[in-house]
Amino acid sequence: MTKWLESVGTDEDVVISTRLRIARNISNYKFPDFMTIDEGQSVTEEVLNAMKDNKDIYKFYRIEDLSQLEKTRFVEDHLISPSLATTTKSGSFLLRDDEKSTIMINEEDHIRIQVLLSGLNTYEGWELCSEIDDYLEKNIEYAFHEKFGYLTSCPTNVGTGLRASVMVHLPCLSMTGHINTIIDGLGKIGLTSRGIYGEGSKALGHLFQISNQITLGEKEEDIIKKLNKVVLQIVARERSTRGYMLDRKKIELEDKVFRSLGILNYSRLISSTEAMAHLSNVKLGCDVGIISGINPKDIVKLMIDIQPANIQKSSNKEMMKDERDVYRAQIIRNKFIDMEG
Amino acid sequence: MTKWLESVGTDEDVVISTRLRIARNISNYKFPDFMTIDEGQSVTEEVLNAMKDNKDIYKFYRIEDLSQLEKTRFVEDHLISPSLATTTKSGSFLLRDDEKSTIMINEEDHIRIQVLLSGLNTYEGWELCSEIDDYLEKNIEYAFHEKFGYLTSCPTNVGTGLRASVMVHLPCLSMTGHINTIIDGLGKIGLTSRGIYGEGSKALGHLFQISNQITLGEKEEDIIKKLNKVVLQIVARERSTRGYMLDRKKIELEDKVFRSLGILNYSRLISSTEAMAHLSNVKLGCDVGIISGINPKDIVKLMIDIQPANIQKSSNKEMMKDERDVYRAQIIRNKFIDMEG
Repeated sequence: MTKWLESVGTDEDVVISTRLRIARNISNYKFPDFMTIDEGQSVTEEVLNAMKDNKDIYKFYRIEDLSQLEKTRFVEDHLISPSLATTTKSGSFLLRDDEKSTIMINEEDHIRIQVLLSGLNTYEGWELCSEIDDYLEKNIEYAFHEKFGYLTSCPTNVGTGLRASVMVHLPCLSMTGHINTIIDGLGKIGLTSRGIYGEGSKALGHLFQISNQITLGEKEEDIIKKLNKVVLQIVARERSTRGYMLDRKKIELEDKVFRSLGILNYSRLISSTEAMAHLSNVKLGCDVGIISGINPKDIVKLMIDIQPANIQKSSNKEMMKDERDVYRAQIIRNKFIDMEG
Repeated sequence: MTKWLESVGTDEDVVISTRLRIARNISNYKFPDFMTIDEGQSVTEEVLNAMKDNKDIYKFYRIEDLSQLEKTRFVEDHLISPSLATTTKSGSFLLRDDEKSTIMINEEDHIRIQVLLSGLNTYEGWELCSEIDDYLEKNIEYAFHEKFGYLTSCPTNVGTGLRASVMVHLPCLSMTGHINTIIDGLGKIGLTSRGIYGEGSKALGHLFQISNQITLGEKEEDIIKKLNKVVLQIVARERSTRGYMLDRKKIELEDKVFRSLGILNYSRLISSTEAMAHLSNVKLGCDVGIISGINPKDIVKLMIDIQPANIQKSSNKEMMKDERDVYRAQIIRNKFIDMEG
């Protein structure tokens, strides 16, 4: 899993990943919330039919065929949204073999195309997203309004239906507290910050997902350009804060980073929240050169691997929280022995 | 330094050390607080003269000849009392070459004989203490009252002048909170608990110094017998609590011990209070078999070596707190590299 991490973006010392998703609906169908199971099935067939020439590179999954563990794991790997995982009727998705894109069917909208790439990679991401969109549009008649643009189940997506988001790792801006002014400022320019597992989930491991709030009245290219520009500004501020701390608070920063490395190497019991905080410090240590010999992408992968469902998946059984915390500590220790060995 | 640690006592999984001290005053002299410098000098000479046959095994130190750092270091090593270190006139001491005993001169009383041994060793300790006492008494006329016994500067020491104390390491009784009832109970049987660097200093690293409160109306042998008996009861309770935790809370205990080991191995900045807490957990880990390959006595030695003045002594310079915290972290890391091979 987490193959998408193998792609290459820029600014990977601060930017973890770039995600684009567009919401589309098929004309003459009710929105998923109001559909019967049969109508949901027809929508699914329309999408599968439109994508039939690509079936070698897309694997099809029905939500109802997946166990709770499998669903949560797809969510933790950022491959599907938490809402798709909880759909009770007709939810399904197509996942590209390199995991760079997912086509979600009957989530909040009939179709949601998602592209997920490593690092900052908005332009390539948008290109891939548009390509899939164009492909579907050849075979499917989208619900489109001349004045409003693409019609969506929730009015906040009407227009472009585009949500472009970039996941950034901001440990130093978090430590100094500057992160709060930055988040406040985002709202004023039509952007927003969310926790890493989507809306409503809280920020873990100093990871922030910066995305556009507005989908109406702005062209896709402009949304992406603005997001890209703002992210680059945030990246620059995080880097200068890292530089400042290395310059003025070096020993305190080293202490923080190495203590986290020590705890990850030695603990016998650890929650995902605590592990995320320490992995965040260790990633920072790798990115600024305090720790050498560890690939920071391995730390990002570990951040995903230690989420509750992934922990259970790798142990092949469902577990209580306490059991997971023991198993998680073991996975982390083994991984660090591998990485540092 | 800390040669006294090399002696062998019993119950060393819980008991760190046994200390006995007797207070004596010379007849026809005022108590030290009221003496002139010349009188203080005469007292010193009387003691040195009485001990002249032993001068090969006792080294003489005058407090005024020692730097602040050296004085504090003798205190941290438990070889002299904090009050002797702060005497401004005529304070001095004789230290035996194996560091098992010190004769302090012109502290609160003219003479205080201290014996310090590793582990539980009250009977051997008392024998050595009496031997020195008898030796001095041959040459010196003690201030003694038929009804009250040995007269001392502070009425709380009148009688035997004996304070017998045992330093115990009680991490599990501290974790469960049972330590509080035990400490409360000590008062009812004429015993008391103090922090490890004497009266007024707080308990660090789950180390408690159990000693007799009463010196009047009880024979020396009875004081020692009672202390020994109570300490053995406390040792048994600490051991059974360790057993309970190993049985019922094994993973939590392992987690605590190994996290402390991780922090000691990785931190770049650590206060003596924090280090003491982690060393306490690691010593527990060694004593119950969670950690193997580390000699718990090396941990006790490290507990002494990381105290502020010892840190400065080993770096050969006076340091600010921040500097000490960095140097302390380094000493600990190096020591663990040595110990863990």
